[in-house]
Amino acid sequence: MRLARIAHAGGVAFASIEGEGDGAQVLEIAEHPFGNPNFTGKRWPLADVRLLAPILPSKVIAVGRNYAAHAAEFGNEVPTSPMTFIKPSTSVIGPNAAIKLPAESERVDFEGELAIVIGQPVRNVPAARAASVILGYTIANDVSARDLQKADGQWGRAKGYDTFCPLGPWIETAIDPSDLALRTELDGEVKQNSRTSLLIHKIPELVEFVSGVMTLLPGDVILTGTPEGVGPMTEGQQVSITIEGIGTLINTAQKA
Amino acid sequence: MRLARIAHAGGVAFASIEGEGDGAQVLEIAEHPFGNPNFTGKRWPLADVRLLAPILPSKVIAVGRNYAAHAAEFGNEVPTSPMTFIKPSTSVIGPNAAIKLPAESERVDFEGELAIVIGQPVRNVPAARAASVILGYTIANDVSARDLQKADGQWGRAKGYDTFCPLGPWIETAIDPSDLALRTELDGEVKQNSRTSLLIHKIPELVEFVSGVMTLLPGDVILTGTPEGVGPMTEGQQVSITIEGIGTLINTAQKA
Repeated sequence: MRLARIAHAGGVAFASIEGEGDGAQVLEIAEHPFGNPNFTGKRWPLADVRLLAPILPSKVIAVGRNYAAHAAEFGNEVPTSPMTFIKPSTSVIGPNAAIKLPAESERVDFEGELAIVIGQPVRNVPAARAASVILGYTIANDVSARDLQKADGQWGRAKGYDTFCPLGPWIETAIDPSDLALRTELDGEVKQNSRTSLLIHKIPELVEFVSGVMTLLPGDVILTGTPEGVGPMTEGQQVSITIEGIGTLINTAQKA
Repeated sequence: MRLARIAHAGGVAFASIEGEGDGAQVLEIAEHPFGNPNFTGKRWPLADVRLLAPILPSKVIAVGRNYAAHAAEFGNEVPTSPMTFIKPSTSVIGPNAAIKLPAESERVDFEGELAIVIGQPVRNVPAARAASVILGYTIANDVSARDLQKADGQWGRAKGYDTFCPLGPWIETAIDPSDLALRTELDGEVKQNSRTSLLIHKIPELVEFVSGVMTLLPGDVILTGTPEGVGPMTEGQQVSITIEGIGTLINTAQKA
């Protein structure tokens, strides 16, 4: 199932998306998408609604340096344990929303990533059971003010600005995430081109690791890390991140 | 006003605390404590209720190395800009709740800190207006798995475990926070003894800085940093953090 959050004429709702292309329809979900969602019976053509961030997580846990070629492009070692940091919930935006470039940064980078969406409250999940606690997968852009990241040492500011966590376009619940093509384009030029099979710490291990530290709540998001090819966005440039079997997340950079 | 969150026989509520010592009473607040709280008319002796974390923040923004003598005790420079990181909301516990020591860490430290509680949704607050967006002040323990902090580089894990953000015992709304004594005792022995006047980046500057990066929501918490004297807790040890004019936050360490 493809789970989305939509704005329609009557308000905001979760929804599932059926069909592809011009015939795609969105079916409104009552309440929330966890467990077995109930449908209200309302439906619209996909083109008639606006897609929002598919989930509003209570927290976003991000993993650094989880592709060897990305660690290498900044001269970093690959960490033995997953290197984690938190992005605030206020950094989340949806597809087609603007990434706001802060005036105090001279280099704001895109980082295309596969994102795990948690489906239930959990703690201490063994890797072998990880799949059972995952609602699905979406696409994330771990936007990073590279100069501030380097200057600060801790990444709370550089990765925590409002609009620095685009998510979407929807959550795909029925997919094997272990070997998906991931491609990031900047104004149509391919910048990142990798596969999730190259993740150093794999998805089941990440769920075990993070849930061994903190309670995960329904809708919480784990960003799995970005492959090589990250680079800066300037005003007006469009970033388009495509993950095979999920879709394409598009956002445009604007001055804050 | 002293704002608390309490568990009483009938449930959980915000409350204000009136009086001191044996005569202290808690007055139940309807809904939330922001703006001008409404009282339900219910009241109990303080001794008859259990104090919970005085607020459940959507996010906790922590500031590192904000007292020169603490930066120096680990051989670090004082940062030019506030060095920020996020602690997850799931790390928050209240007074007298147990700090759980993870098996995978060999050194878990206490860090006594003054905490700012935000009172309204804000972005880009100038330092001169900071006081007007602050609900009040409470006490925090920025519990840190020191070995994992050093090993990981980013502090998401080492400072993000469940129970690693004790807050309380209540929020003091009528206090000048600029020069308060802060004292941390471990099993009654004084370990930290400083004053908030020694903060490098002061409270108005921190509110301006953090709100210049991200939207702050009512109840969000900014930890202002810890002074020198941090050190490890072992199983069964009691950490008691007192800030002049606010109160004392007590928690005991237990094996996870």
